[in-house]
Amino acid sequence: MINVLKIQNPYNRRKRKQAMIGDKMKTLVIVAHPDYHDSGTQGFLKRATEGLEEITWHYLPEQTEFNVAAEQQLLIEHDRIIFQFPMYWYSAPATLKKWEDKVLTRAFTFANEKGILKGKELGIVTTLGYPAKDFQAGATEGFSISEILVPYRALAHRAGMIFMTPLVVDQFDYMTPDQQTKLLIDYQQYLTAAFSFSFSVRQDWIIKQLKKMMNSNNQAQLQLVIDQLEQNKIDLNDLKDQIKMIRQAEEG
Amino acid sequence: MINVLKIQNPYNRRKRKQAMIGDKMKTLVIVAHPDYHDSGTQGFLKRATEGLEEITWHYLPEQTEFNVAAEQQLLIEHDRIIFQFPMYWYSAPATLKKWEDKVLTRAFTFANEKGILKGKELGIVTTLGYPAKDFQAGATEGFSISEILVPYRALAHRAGMIFMTPLVVDQFDYMTPDQQTKLLIDYQQYLTAAFSFSFSVRQDWIIKQLKKMMNSNNQAQLQLVIDQLEQNKIDLNDLKDQIKMIRQAEEG
Repeated sequence: MINVLKIQNPYNRRKRKQAMIGDKMKTLVIVAHPDYHDSGTQGFLKRATEGLEEITWHYLPEQTEFNVAAEQQLLIEHDRIIFQFPMYWYSAPATLKKWEDKVLTRAFTFANEKGILKGKELGIVTTLGYPAKDFQAGATEGFSISEILVPYRALAHRAGMIFMTPLVVDQFDYMTPDQQTKLLIDYQQYLTAAFSFSFSVRQDWIIKQLKKMMNSNNQAQLQLVIDQLEQNKIDLNDLKDQIKMIRQAEEG
Repeated sequence: MINVLKIQNPYNRRKRKQAMIGDKMKTLVIVAHPDYHDSGTQGFLKRATEGLEEITWHYLPEQTEFNVAAEQQLLIEHDRIIFQFPMYWYSAPATLKKWEDKVLTRAFTFANEKGILKGKELGIVTTLGYPAKDFQAGATEGFSISEILVPYRALAHRAGMIFMTPLVVDQFDYMTPDQQTKLLIDYQQYLTAAFSFSFSVRQDWIIKQLKKMMNSNNQAQLQLVIDQLEQNKIDLNDLKDQIKMIRQAEEG
């Protein structure tokens, strides 16, 4: 075990907060998948990150002995940590657990004064072979995704991390092109948009990203989505103006 | 992947039920622990099984490729399956997850018509480095053991297995000799006593086991426990007789 007490924590809180509001938040996507190279879903998600800045794609190969210091350094350098995996028996595949067991030493992880992960975000992107609606009391799976993810929620709790609402991708193979487009946007947002931000900031983010993607194949379809979102925003602003006028009238 | 459809299920329901009431219930203890050979707790628990019949102690070595057919055969041959492990990041160490991912193929595990695990029991023996009371809402760990074990409860649910109340061993290293004696009895009972049986059957079991142990070192202490339990049973029977007499008087 390395002496983590000697690790300098280069993480400046003020700087981090700034980074998360501005454009410079850095996201680490830790991917565990035993059939990674044959997975259509993982290929799709990987392509979705192309062109996005400040994303580190970190695939964990099977049968690897992890370099603990290097893995911890990666965690230190990023603001948002994503665990991305297909759900196997209500948990990540064994490789991610092996990574947790080795890399997340107590002294590195616990949210004490030194707490190196404290204030960072932990997100979960999990793919399901069965419909998401099966995951509830009384249905085939009997337990909700929120319940099944308790071990990760408890980890975030212990490390003082902010646990993000999970992104659940169910039955990717059956998705229509429209559903895939929606997933692509949801996924990019999950990796890069500030978490729990206002509707208007999210809208801006979508428009900005879509404009960047205009060079891709589906230009007509993308233009349609952009027009729709721009219209949404105009409608929202109209609504806000009306509310403002009503309030001023009441106060006057 | 082996063709599980070809596996003959040697498991006769009536015979199994008989076995679980009688003395012939077979228990498989699957042990995952990265420092197994240095673990005082695992050594203690292993010694506690010595002399017990119908127990298969099955340690999963690290870095092993499992023989899926052989592991599935072990599951077929036992009535009660125990996952025994120290809790690492709110779950079993990676080795057990690797075993689950490889051995528990869908066709073998799912509780459909062929459901090979259906009706068997799944027990969890987990050791904690922290006090059990830390595991609740508002305490250090924030989540209960019941919540943390949801992935195993969901597995039991999917396989049609009966999930046993977990046996939680917290802070073994701080236990007094008396606490260790209690743990030994609780553990032996967890492995071999019929689950959810009556108070009187449990008492009989304890007395029977303790009598067997009379050859060990702590004879005086054991005799004390036996006397106490025998007295409990006499008291209980006296109480039952009194209730019976009162009822007869009322009915007469």
